Amino acid sequence: MTVSEDLLYHVDGTLVPASEATVSVDDRGFRYGDAAFETMRAYGGTIFAWERHVDRLERTCRALSLEHGIPAVDLRGRIDETLAANDLTNASVRLSITRGVQPGKLTPQPEVDPTVVVYVSPLPRGGLEGSSVWETPATVRTVQTRRVPDTAIPANAKTHNYLNGILARAELRGTDADEALLCDLEGHLAEGATSNLFFVREGRLETPALSGSVLPGITRELVCELARENGIEVHEGRYTLEDVLEAEEAFLTNRSWELRPIDRIDGAGIGGGPITDRLSRAYDERVETACYR
Amino acid sequence: MTVSEDLLYHVDGTLVPASEATVSVDDRGFRYGDAAFETMRAYGGTIFAWERHVDRLERTCRALSLEHGIPAVDLRGRIDETLAANDLTNASVRLSITRGVQPGKLTPQPEVDPTVVVYVSPLPRGGLEGSSVWETPATVRTVQTRRVPDTAIPANAKTHNYLNGILARAELRGTDADEALLCDLEGHLAEGATSNLFFVREGRLETPALSGSVLPGITRELVCELARENGIEVHEGRYTLEDVLEAEEAFLTNRSWELRPIDRIDGAGIGGGPITDRLSRAYDERVETACYR
Repeated sequence: MTVSEDLLYHVDGTLVPASEATVSVDDRGFRYGDAAFETMRAYGGTIFAWERHVDRLERTCRALSLEHGIPAVDLRGRIDETLAANDLTNASVRLSITRGVQPGKLTPQPEVDPTVVVYVSPLPRGGLEGSSVWETPATVRTVQTRRVPDTAIPANAKTHNYLNGILARAELRGTDADEALLCDLEGHLAEGATSNLFFVREGRLETPALSGSVLPGITRELVCELARENGIEVHEGRYTLEDVLEAEEAFLTNRSWELRPIDRIDGAGIGGGPITDRLSRAYDERVETACYR
Repeated sequence: MTVSEDLLYHVDGTLVPASEATVSVDDRGFRYGDAAFETMRAYGGTIFAWERHVDRLERTCRALSLEHGIPAVDLRGRIDETLAANDLTNASVRLSITRGVQPGKLTPQPEVDPTVVVYVSPLPRGGLEGSSVWETPATVRTVQTRRVPDTAIPANAKTHNYLNGILARAELRGTDADEALLCDLEGHLAEGATSNLFFVREGRLETPALSGSVLPGITRELVCELARENGIEVHEGRYTLEDVLEAEEAFLTNRSWELRPIDRIDGAGIGGGPITDRLSRAYDERVETACYR
């Protein structure tokens, strides 16, 4: 906790030292995980792909019937204020919006007095000249825990109900892996605990389709767009582990890692390669254009 | 919040006014719903079926690999202290244990400094002479939201990941129903958002089997035992909505409601009846024996 104690978070409109940043134990975000969140990157002081985060946050809130009523510009103001107060330009930013404290018990009430928390932590930019935030390529293992199906909790909602990913990660204890790969109930590959999966077959980029139980990652979306812009064919489908094990390249994506090559899955070597490298560079250039010009 | 503001909660070893009872925004219970909980009843100052709650709490913690290290007698001490400080004898009690604040991100670390919260609220006892805590029998509707399958999150774990039930309850908005009935992915009846389901057919008591995605409710367990002790045959199986609609009686169970007859499901009338009444009385007698003698 040494890092976060020096930071300021933004809780319900006020900057507070991270060590004193709290929510009520009656907050539905604590009692039930009844909250939406986004994880973002600030590069050079600018939130990368802000509009996409706003859109996804609204999709999450719609899925939860959580009408928080806070304009996007207000949320952005809180984030910018937090970055400035911490004198941070390159950072990981988490924005959480809960349904707050409500009378009654489980049934959500339409009138919401939301709790809004902005977390920041320093995260250097890799970028065109720098090095990646991950130290090594990912070592991945498939796990027994299955991804929660869309019919139980909407897959496109990014919420504080994160036990599914925690149980997946807990299965890695005692192994050398640092990311868990979850299958859906039918045994098709879905996603990592905190990442989306990509692989390259016959020069084509493949990734599990959103029609499965897959979170629509914003880095995932950007990588698909960048691939198409770079003349790389993209296919979204349903895959088995065998499909990836035969792949020429494989990588994971999320906001922190950006593109992170997969060294091994279940002990079998894969690694990145020319397409992973090309897309990583295209991603860095996109960040450069969006945040530095 | 008028009620809870006058109450004292117990947070990490200290009694605090409910309005000032907080947890860190970095607590995993808040960030991820990474926490176990139990809802209990105090009758005449005694926690009813305490050993069963301890057992289930431990099952939940095992499912989450959450080794909190706090002896049951210590947890019970905190609960008794909270009841005494609030001068409460008949109460609803919630005990939450989170994985606390940990370094790193999603992956749970083995060393846990847990956060322990005891919530209390007054809840009069119905009992042999009094009236029930529910004002009317339940009006139930089946919902589209499906129960999270056991392979995604263990069904026997009672955790702060409660969005599945919240989404089910949110579907009731605009209807006259006060409890949502969830089916599993195969369309078999599982449970209510916060209750277990029972019904009576040809004089036999029926309830969805735990092999489905059903939380092993402690009231459910007690009702099954009381039925057998009273010579009522109990069958745990897989059922469709039609099975219940043809039932002679139907009721829901949880710690607060105890046994609550179902007036209607999806508009079709069912109601309690002689077996529901007999089991309700047996339950009240069990409370009497356990907590007042």
